[in-house]
Amino acid sequence: MRTGKGVEWAMHTLLNLAWLGDGEPVATAQLAAGHDLSASYLNKQLQQLVKGGLLESVPGARGGFRLARPLAAMSVLDVVLAIEGDAPLFRCTEIRRCGTIGERCPDAGFAQPCAVKVAMGRAEAAWRQALAEQSLADVQAAADEHAPTVGAHVRQALGHG
Amino acid sequence: MRTGKGVEWAMHTLLNLAWLGDGEPVATAQLAAGHDLSASYLNKQLQQLVKGGLLESVPGARGGFRLARPLAAMSVLDVVLAIEGDAPLFRCTEIRRCGTIGERCPDAGFAQPCAVKVAMGRAEAAWRQALAEQSLADVQAAADEHAPTVGAHVRQALGHG
Repeated sequence: MRTGKGVEWAMHTLLNLAWLGDGEPVATAQLAAGHDLSASYLNKQLQQLVKGGLLESVPGARGGFRLARPLAAMSVLDVVLAIEGDAPLFRCTEIRRCGTIGERCPDAGFAQPCAVKVAMGRAEAAWRQALAEQSLADVQAAADEHAPTVGAHVRQALGHG
Repeated sequence: MRTGKGVEWAMHTLLNLAWLGDGEPVATAQLAAGHDLSASYLNKQLQQLVKGGLLESVPGARGGFRLARPLAAMSVLDVVLAIEGDAPLFRCTEIRRCGTIGERCPDAGFAQPCAVKVAMGRAEAAWRQALAEQSLADVQAAADEHAPTVGAHVRQALGHG
């Protein structure tokens, strides 16, 4: 029960594009080299970010990916949903309806959602809310505070000029 | 990024043992039949609950599993940790240190935890807290409120008498 590595890759790529700051598209190979990632797997994640409205894909020889909107308008939840989808964390298969116990229960008992699912959903709502309350600009600011030169290093590594 | 089916199976099994209420051990096969589950896979989950201190295993021909403590003293988090382990939801592989960007950053920049990891961890803490705040007795009470006859049905299906 863990996120795929795509969430980490996507978060860092979005931050790197923001540090680059010139709005020019960056090729997948260059973004991948930035953190020594598989370009083909990264490309799949970036396509998901395009579908999720967080990146724009620019075609052509000088094409690549650029931010679709400022980091202040992207929450961490937006990134997680774009990469992982919005299926619930808790896998409920309604076993309460099955077997020697389920068969004895009147159908009316199942009109209400399962109490187990409700309890798990309550925690998941807290998780999503905490993800939604943090923008990527917040994350960038925290990284800048920890390591004030990180933006300059990204521009040196990925810069076009 | 989802829980395995083990969490649902474990939660319902613990509730069923509480509804049974007589403290007698119940065999895996009987517990599995209660919700038409695979006995061998359920048994693996129940062994995890024993390791986690939530169930006791009673050996012998009339053996099986019984609650190790009352549901009021078990949180939903206890069950999730027993089944899923306590690895973080977010998979951080420290890609920030790698590649053309990471190589440019001074080691001192990595003394602080990665801002992405911190942001994801904040949400995970909210999720764990919400799981910890709910006892299995709370879940049982919610189920009893939705379906007041559920306990009687479990006793009919799993009862020893």
